[in-house]
Parts: sequence; C-alpha cells; structure tokens
Amino acid sequence: MNPEEKYSISGPINPDFKFKKVSSRDLEYYIRGLQQHNKFVLSEAITLIESQNAQKSIKAAALMDWAFDHLPKDSLRIAVTGTPGVGKSTFIEAFGNLWVHHGHKLSVLAVDPSSQISGGSILGDKTRMTTLAANPEVFIRPSASGGTLGGTALHTKDAIMLCEAAGYTTSIVETVGVGQSETEVHHMTDVSLLLVQPGAGDEIQGIKRGIMENADIIIINKADGPQLPLARETQKNYSNALRLFHHPVEGWSVPVVLVSSIDHTGMDEVIRHISDFISFGKNTGYFYTKRKTQEERWFVKQVQRLMEKWFFSNIHIKTHFEKLRQQLLDGKISTPAAIRKMNNIFEQEMNP
Amino acid sequence: MNPEEKYSISGPINPDFKFKKVSSRDLEYYIRGLQQHNKFVLSEAITLIESQNAQKSIKAAALMDWAFDHLPKDSLRIAVTGTPGVGKSTFIEAFGNLWVHHGHKLSVLAVDPSSQISGGSILGDKTRMTTLAANPEVFIRPSASGGTLGGTALHTKDAIMLCEAAGYTTSIVETVGVGQSETEVHHMTDVSLLLVQPGAGDEIQGIKRGIMENADIIIINKADGPQLPLARETQKNYSNALRLFHHPVEGWSVPVVLVSSIDHTGMDEVIRHISDFISFGKNTGYFYTKRKTQEERWFVKQVQRLMEKWFFSNIHIKTHFEKLRQQLLDGKISTPAAIRKMNNIFEQEMNP
Repeated sequence: MNPEEKYSISGPINPDFKFKKVSSRDLEYYIRGLQQHNKFVLSEAITLIESQNAQKSIKAAALMDWAFDHLPKDSLRIAVTGTPGVGKSTFIEAFGNLWVHHGHKLSVLAVDPSSQISGGSILGDKTRMTTLAANPEVFIRPSASGGTLGGTALHTKDAIMLCEAAGYTTSIVETVGVGQSETEVHHMTDVSLLLVQPGAGDEIQGIKRGIMENADIIIINKADGPQLPLARETQKNYSNALRLFHHPVEGWSVPVVLVSSIDHTGMDEVIRHISDFISFGKNTGYFYTKRKTQEERWFVKQVQRLMEKWFFSNIHIKTHFEKLRQQLLDGKISTPAAIRKMNNIFEQEMNP
Repeated sequence: MNPEEKYSISGPINPDFKFKKVSSRDLEYYIRGLQQHNKFVLSEAITLIESQNAQKSIKAAALMDWAFDHLPKDSLRIAVTGTPGVGKSTFIEAFGNLWVHHGHKLSVLAVDPSSQISGGSILGDKTRMTTLAANPEVFIRPSASGGTLGGTALHTKDAIMLCEAAGYTTSIVETVGVGQSETEVHHMTDVSLLLVQPGAGDEIQGIKRGIMENADIIIINKADGPQLPLARETQKNYSNALRLFHHPVEGWSVPVVLVSSIDHTGMDEVIRHISDFISFGKNTGYFYTKRKTQEERWFVKQVQRLMEKWFFSNIHIKTHFEKLRQQLLDGKISTPAAIRKMNNIFEQEMNP
C-alpha cells in the first residue's frame, strides 16, 4: 500500500491521522474536495500548487491536469486594476455581492507581484470584504507570498483553474496596482476593469499609456457627494482621451462608468457592460483567441522554467555558473566577461 | 583589410563614406566618441546595444566590455519613481540643472516597461525638459521602444554604463510609474527617490506596500500655493507610515521632503539627503554590496537568455516546442500535457 493512501480520506482509520494529515493529502482528497465545492480543500489545493517542494509539485501537476480536464463549459475571468487607494476592495465587495445575487459562484484572487523585501499580503485584510467573505457562494483567496516576480502570477493563473474546476465559475483577480501585476493580470483574464478616481486631466495624460490601453471598461469610483461634478468632468476627459487608443477588439468602444459604493449607483451598468463585452468577444471570436493565446504564453513561460531546471541539472554547467557568480560577487571578473564565459560553456555542452 | 575598417574614422577616405557610415561604424568609432564625451556617438552607442541584430550584438558586447573597463571611479545612479502625473519630469529638470551647477555631468534615462500594445515613448517629449536638454553637461536619452518587458530594463542598465564610460558620472533613471519599471529601476540604481503628491492618508495606506519599501527618500512634490497645508499633512502621514517599514539599510530613516518647482524650495534638501544616503551606504558597505548584487542579478538574467538561445539552437527541441505550441493554439492538447511532453524532451536531450 502506498504510504499516502494509508492516510487518505478513503483509507483506513489511523490513530496518527490527525498528526499526519497535512503531509499526506493524496490526489483523491483534493479532487473529491474540489468536486464538493469545499472551500477549505480549495484553499489547500492552491497552497499545494504554490509549493516549491519537489514531491508536492508532482502532486500539484497531477491536480492541475485533472482541473484542466474538468473546467466548466462557461467561465468568466475579470481583472480589477487601479492604483492603490482607488477603492478596489470596496468595489469588489459591492460588485461581488450583486453578481452572486444574479446566481453565480465567485472566487476572488490576487495577482501579487509580491513585496520583494518584506513579503506581506494583499486581500489579507478580509475585514475589507466582510460581507463577501461571509457569502457561501464566494471563495476569497488572500495572497500571502514572498515569491519571485512573475512566479506568483503564474500560480494565480493555476488558482483560477482550480477555482473553476471547483465550481466557482466567475473569478475576480485583483491587482495591487503596482509592479508587474498590472501587466500580468491581462494575460489571465477575459475582461479588464480599470478603476480610477475623480481627478484632474493631468493624471489622465500620465496614466493613459500602458494601463489605459489594457482597460476594457473604465470605472470612475467614488462618484458621489461633493466629488460628483468632478467625477462627471473626469468621465468626459477619459472618454475624450480614449479616442486616441485603438482597443484590441475592433469595434469595441471602452465605456466610462460612474460608480458609487455609497450611493449604490452604477453597478448594474458595470454588469451590463461586462456582459456586452463578453458577448461581443464571443461573437467576434476574440474571447476564444485571447484564451488560447493566454495558454500559449503560459506554456512558453513554463518551458523557460523547465529549461533552467534541465540546464542546471547538468553538473558542469551548474558548477561553472556558481563559480562565475561568486567571482562576480568578489569583483574578480566583469559582468560581460562572465557572460561570455557562460556562453562558451553552453556552446560546449550543446554541441559536444 | 576588414571591410569595416575601410570605413572607420581612422581608415582611408572613401567616396562612399557618407552613405555607408551608419552600417559600418566600427568599435573604435564608438570608443573614441565616448572618450570625447560626444553625445551623438553616445546616443548611437545606446542604439547599438539595444539592437537585436546578431552582428551588431557582437559589436555591442565588445563595446560593453570596453565600457566596463572604463567606468569612472565614482558614479551615482539615481532612480526617480512615482505615479504618472506626479511631476517627475519637472522635478528632474529642476534637480538636474542644480546638480550640474554643482559641477557634475548628468545623463537622464528611462526604464520603460514598454507599452506592449502600441509601443510609444516616454521622455520622448523633450519639451518637458527644455533647459536640461539644452545644457551641454547633460545627456538625455528618450526611450522609444516596443521591446519585451524586462528587455528594455536590461538595456537601460547597459546604457547607464555607457553614459558613465562617456564621462556622465551621474545618471538619473526615470520610470513610467506603471508596470514592472518600478521594480526594475531599483536593480540598477544606488538611491531611489519616490515622488508623491499632497494627498489623503487613504492613498498612503494603499501605496505603502512595494513602492514605499523601495524608497530611500520620499519627496512630496507640488508643495506650494493652496496645496502647502495639505502637503505638510501628507508629510506627517508618510513619516508616520514609514515607521511600519524596515528600510534595507539598517539605521537609515527615510526622510520626507517638501519640494516645489514653482517656489524653488526643497531642492537643496533633496541633494543633502542623497549625499547623506550615499555616504551612509559607503560607510556601512551597503552601497558596494548593492552594486555587486545588481551585477550578479544581471548576470543571472543574461544567463537565462543564453539558455533559451542554446536550447532552441537544438533542432529537436525547437521542432517539438513549435509543434506543441501549435497544438495548444489549435486546442488539440491541454497546457499541462504540453508542458509534460516538453519536459520529457528536455530530459532526453540533457541525458542522452
């Protein structure tokens, strides 16, 4: 008997079960949990795929394999972007509750470019989404990670798949609004909502490059009270600025919506625009092409990781690399010289 | 005679010189130009290292080799970060002119995460830095690129080296304030200035992760006129928020400075803090460690690029990779299955 099976939920009762259970989850445990829409198991499954542990990564790969074969026919992946402080959490809470009210199951995840220095978490503060967190149809995954740039983003993509396989057919991916998360999130979602605050035209000039280009729907948040006139002005400015851009979807003109979490206005309009954008994308084929391109991009990224793994499994390469790296740190070699030497070593190994 | 030498500036006069000169610049042309602090040649040299052309890249590598061997004993690399619209260009203009007035030669570069959709440029609009652009002691490099994410950042690092080898011993690197440039810029500079606007405490809560952690000096820009009281309030808020962070340099407490480009206030203070930070870093050794770590990181990144080059020079690997990628785009294989197959191919090739 496989030592893992012994402690699986389908295996015999074992006095050590409690003590051993964390380390001995088998594939069936995860699959059964996901099939039962079990939030706790879903959470454990995401932790599994985030793990750097080699043995766990084999299990994680098998789980992802299963998940890919059990994706729902229809799913929706929404990006919520915007600079810090713009009110993304409040928006997601209001939107999410309404969305679930419309009969959907929802997961909320984060693309975290990761704080390279201190680690830390976003969405960690669930108190910012209390009603959403309490909703039985909603799965919230706080992102807590000290991973490398890009690595976490890849895991987020896998996490979306797990959520979908577990029946959470709509996913909202929140970005921290700094670093590369803004860019990465577009490579794993179907529609991008850009949240902005009522503000001056000057900022629009600045923001338009890069961020605005990726927005499918622009939401002017906090459009209430004394800010309402400024919000209307901002709406006009964005609408004008948008004329300078070619949206990747030919024929789609990016709507600019005023939203207030206090006055509860604009949310229906947001839902309508999302639905329009998705229908439009499905009719033109853009929706499906984008998803395929995303898978292809993800494949390329994973292949790059595999390359590293296999190159460094070559002891000759690994030894030279470490030696050169140390010489560099000791100031005994210049960077271009180190790169040239490494290139020669690759050449030798690939053309023996 | 080498065909390149024929048209080099040291070679014989040739009637085709004018026509051929762009394609036939030899290494000596660049080196002599950099030695003479020639801005035009420096600009050409940066274009050379940005080139994707294989033959040019050999020349570029040789030039970088030379540059590394001719770096000045003392140089200073300053990052200027902050969200779009915060006034980075205006700040750099005012700061740069004062810095040059203090007897330095200055280059201004940009880390451009590159607009993945439309391309485009920042700093392209030199009219925003008119007096600085006209200053003979200043070299401004507008960033115009449609390169891949990260790629441009690597070139920026090389560009700093070229500027330094050409005698521009201080470099200011401006970020676009979105995408991964914020993160990348810290891997190529000695000191990071974060520009913020007078604003509410709410934003500070949001901004603090990631961006604030990397700031060595925080500058509250536009601290003038009716905004001055708010700016003072913001200064207090940031100072309080900073208590939550451990700056990587033990013992350094991040100063928060009020600056006005209109009232010409605060700039001397900024210069003093930069100088303090550098002295502090040199005394503790942090300055030197950071630079070495940056070189090491750059080496690792380049090695990753070499890996790709060499792996794909293997026709067996390349063929399988392209086939799997196409199957993925055609929906004929799942992503995990494609990755697994690729892994098997790597295994075969690396353990023949």
